[in-house]
Amino acid sequence: MTEDILSICLIDVKRDIFEGVIECNKRGLIQSAKWLSELSHGLSVVDFKISEQKNPSFSGISTEEYDNYNISKSYFDCKEYDRSAYFTRNCESPVPKFLHLYATYMSKEKKRVDNMTENTAMNDNTHVKDLTDLLTSLKVEYNQRKMDGYCLYLYGVILKKLDLVDMAITIFIESVHQTPTMWGSWIELSTLIPTKEKLNNLNLPNHWMKYIFTGHTLLEQFLNDDGLKQFEDLQAAGFTKCIYVTSQIALAYHNKRGRFNFISPAKSSKLIFNFFRR
Amino acid sequence: MTEDILSICLIDVKRDIFEGVIECNKRGLIQSAKWLSELSHGLSVVDFKISEQKNPSFSGISTEEYDNYNISKSYFDCKEYDRSAYFTRNCESPVPKFLHLYATYMSKEKKRVDNMTENTAMNDNTHVKDLTDLLTSLKVEYNQRKMDGYCLYLYGVILKKLDLVDMAITIFIESVHQTPTMWGSWIELSTLIPTKEKLNNLNLPNHWMKYIFTGHTLLEQFLNDDGLKQFEDLQAAGFTKCIYVTSQIALAYHNKRGRFNFISPAKSSKLIFNFFRR
Repeated sequence: MTEDILSICLIDVKRDIFEGVIECNKRGLIQSAKWLSELSHGLSVVDFKISEQKNPSFSGISTEEYDNYNISKSYFDCKEYDRSAYFTRNCESPVPKFLHLYATYMSKEKKRVDNMTENTAMNDNTHVKDLTDLLTSLKVEYNQRKMDGYCLYLYGVILKKLDLVDMAITIFIESVHQTPTMWGSWIELSTLIPTKEKLNNLNLPNHWMKYIFTGHTLLEQFLNDDGLKQFEDLQAAGFTKCIYVTSQIALAYHNKRGRFNFISPAKSSKLIFNFFRR
Repeated sequence: MTEDILSICLIDVKRDIFEGVIECNKRGLIQSAKWLSELSHGLSVVDFKISEQKNPSFSGISTEEYDNYNISKSYFDCKEYDRSAYFTRNCESPVPKFLHLYATYMSKEKKRVDNMTENTAMNDNTHVKDLTDLLTSLKVEYNQRKMDGYCLYLYGVILKKLDLVDMAITIFIESVHQTPTMWGSWIELSTLIPTKEKLNNLNLPNHWMKYIFTGHTLLEQFLNDDGLKQFEDLQAAGFTKCIYVTSQIALAYHNKRGRFNFISPAKSSKLIFNFFRR
């Protein structure tokens, strides 16, 4: 481990996360913001001064669209997705534009979940049709090369839902190249990579998030020793107090204990997390 | 109406709302943020430049507490209130401190609602006991004069839930004096003022929010002509395109149409809002 120790500048990590959390929060991506915030909390000792940072709270929102963005985001936070999508329908700047697409997607998802118990088979078909409409809009944007990492994430999610796996992989990789702190894209990508060979052949950005992704994917593939090595390297590089990293290590050891009681990391990480917080 | 036209500087209103929305969002007060955003959206024509404003995104959060605030807010957004409260339990700066108290309150509320169907009577008692603990902490803070308008709002809400009405009125009034854009405090106060006489005797801050509150309270008391006058004055002062103001006027006319089909504004505003958006 000492031979090929990872060299990661933790101040860069903190800055990346600081900006990543703000960007995710502006877009209503609360799960990615949560994951990043947890990671940042484990790096509290790093000497990083917020007061010296540029504040990106309003970047990506044009002044003329701020009112529309603001009302849309307020509705989104209250889970009123149709209203949210309505107010940003004509916006051009990146943040409100993403919010419009994401609110449209969430509205469809919410309706699908609400109707789920009634008639699963029928709703599945309707749902695919619903998503196809959204997919068409996204495809147009994509072909015009207008998409940032967040829009690419959403595009990938929809492709994946429609079982267009290869295209989804391409899009998620583009997304993490553009926005390496978008955890949502990494985690979706991870579920589409079933073998180590496929993992090694991916063209990933040279960013510290790559190591976390690789470790996570190896554990998802039950390659426990390889995954363990990755997370131990991350610990040695300074991610000592990050609960996520510790829980992944715990999980690797758990899986190594017995051959027949493997748990998927995604399913068990919450369990492990709770255990470590006692 | 022309004689005593309200003189309100709409640029001040936009600035107040701009800051108010950010402060509410930092604290997870999504309903007040939504109300303010709707109002602001109706004032889109006002020449207000965000780029020239001081950005209050990090004010009230000390640098040392930023990581704890951030993780706590992320959990709050995901409705994991116990975790949220845990990470800000030792914070001293105003925003994370409020978040701790609010998350504690929301956790208790969530549990109460979750258990509601099982045994209403028993849970009601437990709930009052639960809130008494939180009330004690808030009382200590209050006696030390350490509370801002947002903490006072929460204190008022709990006093009101425990039927300590007079004290709640005092606290809500203190809250709106300290933070006039805190719509939550105004609306809670409104429900506690049953008569015009009581309304006239309140010591309210000299702020444009007072006119909205007065109109709202008059309509809640079914004093339709008085309420209508108030909202028409607001329209004349420039709140022409604000959906909230228009819907209150519509409501007043609706109530005036028949003596026996009064609807409480709070209950019907959503209905009217939808009608106006068609």
